[in-house]
Amino acid sequence: MEISRTEFKSRLERLRAEAEREGLDALLIHSNESDYANVRYLSDYWPAFESAGVFLPVDGTPCLIIGPESEDYAADRSVLEPIVKLTPYRESAEPEYPDVDVSSFQEVFANSRRPIKRLGIVGWAIFPHEIFLQVQSAAGSARIEKADHVMVRLRSIKSDSEIEVLKEANRIAELAIERVLEEVQPGITELQLVGIAQEALYRNGAEYEGMPLYVFGGRSTRHAISRPTNRVLAEGEVLQLNIGARVAGYSSSVGRPVYLGKKMPDHVKRLIQGGLEAHKETATWMRPGVQASAIAEKYWSYLQEHGLSDYFLYGPAHGLGMIEVEQPWVETTSKYPFAPNMTFQVDTFLRSGEFGCRWEDAVRITETGVEWLSGQRLELIEVG
Amino acid sequence: MEISRTEFKSRLERLRAEAEREGLDALLIHSNESDYANVRYLSDYWPAFESAGVFLPVDGTPCLIIGPESEDYAADRSVLEPIVKLTPYRESAEPEYPDVDVSSFQEVFANSRRPIKRLGIVGWAIFPHEIFLQVQSAAGSARIEKADHVMVRLRSIKSDSEIEVLKEANRIAELAIERVLEEVQPGITELQLVGIAQEALYRNGAEYEGMPLYVFGGRSTRHAISRPTNRVLAEGEVLQLNIGARVAGYSSSVGRPVYLGKKMPDHVKRLIQGGLEAHKETATWMRPGVQASAIAEKYWSYLQEHGLSDYFLYGPAHGLGMIEVEQPWVETTSKYPFAPNMTFQVDTFLRSGEFGCRWEDAVRITETGVEWLSGQRLELIEVG
Repeated sequence: MEISRTEFKSRLERLRAEAEREGLDALLIHSNESDYANVRYLSDYWPAFESAGVFLPVDGTPCLIIGPESEDYAADRSVLEPIVKLTPYRESAEPEYPDVDVSSFQEVFANSRRPIKRLGIVGWAIFPHEIFLQVQSAAGSARIEKADHVMVRLRSIKSDSEIEVLKEANRIAELAIERVLEEVQPGITELQLVGIAQEALYRNGAEYEGMPLYVFGGRSTRHAISRPTNRVLAEGEVLQLNIGARVAGYSSSVGRPVYLGKKMPDHVKRLIQGGLEAHKETATWMRPGVQASAIAEKYWSYLQEHGLSDYFLYGPAHGLGMIEVEQPWVETTSKYPFAPNMTFQVDTFLRSGEFGCRWEDAVRITETGVEWLSGQRLELIEVG
Repeated sequence: MEISRTEFKSRLERLRAEAEREGLDALLIHSNESDYANVRYLSDYWPAFESAGVFLPVDGTPCLIIGPESEDYAADRSVLEPIVKLTPYRESAEPEYPDVDVSSFQEVFANSRRPIKRLGIVGWAIFPHEIFLQVQSAAGSARIEKADHVMVRLRSIKSDSEIEVLKEANRIAELAIERVLEEVQPGITELQLVGIAQEALYRNGAEYEGMPLYVFGGRSTRHAISRPTNRVLAEGEVLQLNIGARVAGYSSSVGRPVYLGKKMPDHVKRLIQGGLEAHKETATWMRPGVQASAIAEKYWSYLQEHGLSDYFLYGPAHGLGMIEVEQPWVETTSKYPFAPNMTFQVDTFLRSGEFGCRWEDAVRITETGVEWLSGQRLELIEVG
């Protein structure tokens, strides 16, 4: 299951048109090992250790930019050629590579047939200052500006192939959750369960974890972002699972709170069940034409009406695609309407002083509402 | 197995002294999800999704800098306080967080009791231009300069605890290699073997993979950097394993070429055995006082003398610690002497037009030579 070469080529052409409409002369797109999405979207190239870029002139030849050690890997993997090596895309520990011939931004920019007066940077938040300096030196008096928005427009509406790989990534994540539920018991560590999940992800066809897996109990369940540890799980606590698979560059994350015991106490059930109901309800509000900010406000009102607003930590949803959290956002400041084939994670996170619980599922906006791309085990889960 | 709070505190004090000796007034250290090492070295904080920093004034109070969503996670995990949230450390997809109160670099820099005239940046290669702009705006006329070298000096000589966790990371990696060798057979995919390795890593106490695991056959074995795929392994090919565990922030990678068949043909054996002999030989040259560049030159001469220089892709060694490839390097341009308790990966990589083979092991420089931190299966491995 993969994205076709034709689709990759069409992405480049659509992005070129977007750049031209913005009055930009060229784009320089940046990615690294953990933020690989923008470069992979255009080339299927997936950096490791080194970073990567795509130079896309409005009039001229695009190219893939890699570090000095990735030449053979990139040649076998990238759908975009030519490929050029630049020193500042090397590993962050900065080897000198005295024997490797590298290119320069002057040579890269010579692929633009028109002078570059305005250069848009995509991946602005992670764009290294060192690369900025080298670009500035090579681009003379060009204005160098943030241009992430041109790529967000392109990435936020998914093609049929993108939806297929997202479904597959969700299918695999749900299989991994079932494996974890088979093996979980008091006495096992969070990280041992991560290993069980990983084995199931790869056995069922994942190319990587969708994101650093969330498998933890205790206080960590209260963290919006966290990491599993060697902590031993105990009877009577809540275990939070957010398990994701990556397929062809697209990531899933299915979130389920699990009670480690025969029957969850009422104060635990109140949050877990309250969260589940809010979660399902949120999905019923999502349809084409609805403003994202309206959903964020409605979620907040819902929590207030149901006595849950004191427990709010996150919600109601965020964009889903290559990175498991990507634009567009669904915040009270998000001024855009939902449209068919946008994909979101409905992400409902409540917490008390003692624990947190997070329901997370992928949906696609259809012509009339949503299609769930995950949805197994949308129920109270008790193990014991 | 972990690094003690006392050791973390002593690192901060030693780094402060290094910064003062360099004439710097303060350091700003940067890390992200894939390049987590410098911040973790000082705080044990390990970012996910968001990036992170440490501000360390020569005279004043250091602090940990995180993104808007990591507050509770950081509070439970960091050994360094206070903790401040800054917007440009958010996820690269740039949520707006309308309800989260964040701080500013002005407030952060107010923790320095002296005016900041020279601010050193550690993590220069990945330091985002957007953060640079905000630092520049808050730091007025301060000179902002690259200062990675002050941290490399600190990180390159390992403490007893660091060596213990590196040994553990290597022990776990070798267990995972044994698991892979038990399960490998023609017909299995590269990624299924990755899952088997991952399960073994986590079951035996790893907190993460040491780096994106190398498990691949065919042309990918020729790549200096690569990623495993869904490719089905076939009888009669070379499988390259570079398996690493991460323990308490320290990473291993043990590299073994494996022949999938009863007996490797002579042309395969020539490279695999030639590489193994070069690999063992390299380790005998490494001892305190020897210049790193001399080892790189000696390796090249060795390959020439043994008719292997046409097959050279990488070697002889590189620094090892938190990131599986870190400074100091062992290149012909590396002008420093080896010293006791430096740790290296001996990394011997030969390739023909058909396949590559890479032997990789961790060593510690002792008073008189090296101690191997890995070393199981330094032999011709045939499976079938």
